[in-house]
Amino acid sequence: MFESTKRTELSSLGEFGLIKHLTAHFEIKNPSSILGIGDDAAIIQHKGKQTLITQDLLIEGVHFDLTYMPLKHLGYKAAIVNFSDIVAMNGLPAQMLVGIGVSNRFSVEALEEVYAGIRVACEKYKVDLVGGDTVSTNKGMHLSVTALGAARKDKIVLRSGAKPGDLVFVSGDLGAAYMGLLVLEREKKTFMANPRHQPDLAGYDYIVGRQLRPEARLDILELLKKKKVFPTAMIDISDGLASELKHICVASNTGCNVYEDKIPIDPVTVTTAEEFSLNPLTAALNGGEDYELLFTVKAEDYDKLKGETAVHVIGHITDSASGLNLINGIGEQIPLKSQGWDAFKES
Amino acid sequence: MFESTKRTELSSLGEFGLIKHLTAHFEIKNPSSILGIGDDAAIIQHKGKQTLITQDLLIEGVHFDLTYMPLKHLGYKAAIVNFSDIVAMNGLPAQMLVGIGVSNRFSVEALEEVYAGIRVACEKYKVDLVGGDTVSTNKGMHLSVTALGAARKDKIVLRSGAKPGDLVFVSGDLGAAYMGLLVLEREKKTFMANPRHQPDLAGYDYIVGRQLRPEARLDILELLKKKKVFPTAMIDISDGLASELKHICVASNTGCNVYEDKIPIDPVTVTTAEEFSLNPLTAALNGGEDYELLFTVKAEDYDKLKGETAVHVIGHITDSASGLNLINGIGEQIPLKSQGWDAFKES
Repeated sequence: MFESTKRTELSSLGEFGLIKHLTAHFEIKNPSSILGIGDDAAIIQHKGKQTLITQDLLIEGVHFDLTYMPLKHLGYKAAIVNFSDIVAMNGLPAQMLVGIGVSNRFSVEALEEVYAGIRVACEKYKVDLVGGDTVSTNKGMHLSVTALGAARKDKIVLRSGAKPGDLVFVSGDLGAAYMGLLVLEREKKTFMANPRHQPDLAGYDYIVGRQLRPEARLDILELLKKKKVFPTAMIDISDGLASELKHICVASNTGCNVYEDKIPIDPVTVTTAEEFSLNPLTAALNGGEDYELLFTVKAEDYDKLKGETAVHVIGHITDSASGLNLINGIGEQIPLKSQGWDAFKES
Repeated sequence: MFESTKRTELSSLGEFGLIKHLTAHFEIKNPSSILGIGDDAAIIQHKGKQTLITQDLLIEGVHFDLTYMPLKHLGYKAAIVNFSDIVAMNGLPAQMLVGIGVSNRFSVEALEEVYAGIRVACEKYKVDLVGGDTVSTNKGMHLSVTALGAARKDKIVLRSGAKPGDLVFVSGDLGAAYMGLLVLEREKKTFMANPRHQPDLAGYDYIVGRQLRPEARLDILELLKKKKVFPTAMIDISDGLASELKHICVASNTGCNVYEDKIPIDPVTVTTAEEFSLNPLTAALNGGEDYELLFTVKAEDYDKLKGETAVHVIGHITDSASGLNLINGIGEQIPLKSQGWDAFKES
């Protein structure tokens, strides 16, 4: 439903012609990108810095649904989720490789849309597309994105540096991307039952936008730098707050106390969750795909971030014996369970 | 038909448990691999060297057929085809990321087999597995491999450096991997018609091995270094000699003359091609998947390589106006057409 009207068959360009065609308007922006697409491998040089590298696979029907995910947004999001991993190490994304597998169901115009979204992400985050692969599949679309970034050795932030007494911060708000997904799936069901139904997303713009067009929080890194706050541990929220807290606590060998009423949730997320008879907290803890940053800072850095509206303190790190706990409104301590998205668990 | 008998469901381990389980026995071997699997991104540092990076997607039913490709060989080959791209730039492969998408049809043991093959390749080529992604698909298996390597800036060999008068060399022999594929497909057909049929591959070991277990020719780089020969252009043969010659000539803005009777073809490739009523030269020119190196050297370097049995001079570079030509046994000049594997062309 989102494909352009013109249809050029993939077979009309051939593999090499297709890659050339799709990547023609990508310009190299980073001096570290020595050689991009066109040889056996790309060449990268981060002088005096360490290279960060991450990879994500996105499979149609598992990670995205093209009935409500426009192809351009898909390309954008596939790039962002990888940039977000680099940002979560306190690095600057600089290069990416895009592997794309498509069946004959897709036209050249459809792939152009995907690449148009990738290009918007590359422009916005100043990232160079330096390589990739384009192959055919028997069915569906598969995206494999690899992102590279750079950071000075002493500036990289791992998951493992949190210490008891550190404060736990989160950027933005949580649970919106998941509620956006539920709204899109509801509209899809209605559309399937009645193809003349026009999707009604009025009032849901914010949460639908959070699902379709996430951002990597490079601005938070800049804020922390400006405020001279160096996080002790950091991770991006792809699987939900509970799962990411667990990653930090396991890697750092700590526990944590997180306060229910401190977790930032947008009012639209709350009202939509109520519509779905869902606790908004469940969306925030286990929904995932917010791509906000979860990080810990030394207690003495609290004052430097006080009054900043982009980040919120939600709790503190404890020793590992105390476990991971959620403190509710009346002060009860509830063990935190992560039900984060799990690829192979049956739902 | 190649899966182990024990079957553990993927869902029993969960995503993070699965990655941890599969990658538990991979040891870090390169000092440039600062941090491997377990955080948002891996960390790599190639001091004073440039980083080479390449990515390949392999899709079940398109790039491999599990009825005759054992899972361990698949893992090995997926690694090798990427190492080969790094080698073709005159670089040393050092790190890799493996993205794997599988449906519930596959068990934990099946994935262990794939990783066992990847591990053999990593051990042999001293490459570190530093990251990746494991996701579920609705159908089939998808592999996305990213390989990184390093080389001194002045040692990297591109496709674009060939000059008229340079000699064209190829390593090993060509066409065997393709004939191996045809034999495997013939056995599969027989097996499909009669499941009690035992595959008979006697006498075809060499060509079947070339298809199932290719190598990246790191040894050729060592030979060239030892002989003090620095190639002017280089590429690995993944799509067939004709297609790779075209890549070098287009990138270098040259033509070439290649001599039919100089193209190295193994006797088993010749006899098997005859069985299939195929010209062995067609397998060599257009078969692909040999992963041999095609490279050009200055004419004065000829003497340094004379007598080396691992490499063969097959022709020379001409000016671009002369085009790409094949010279047959009676001296006739035939324009060279590449029918290299093309992902989207219908066969």
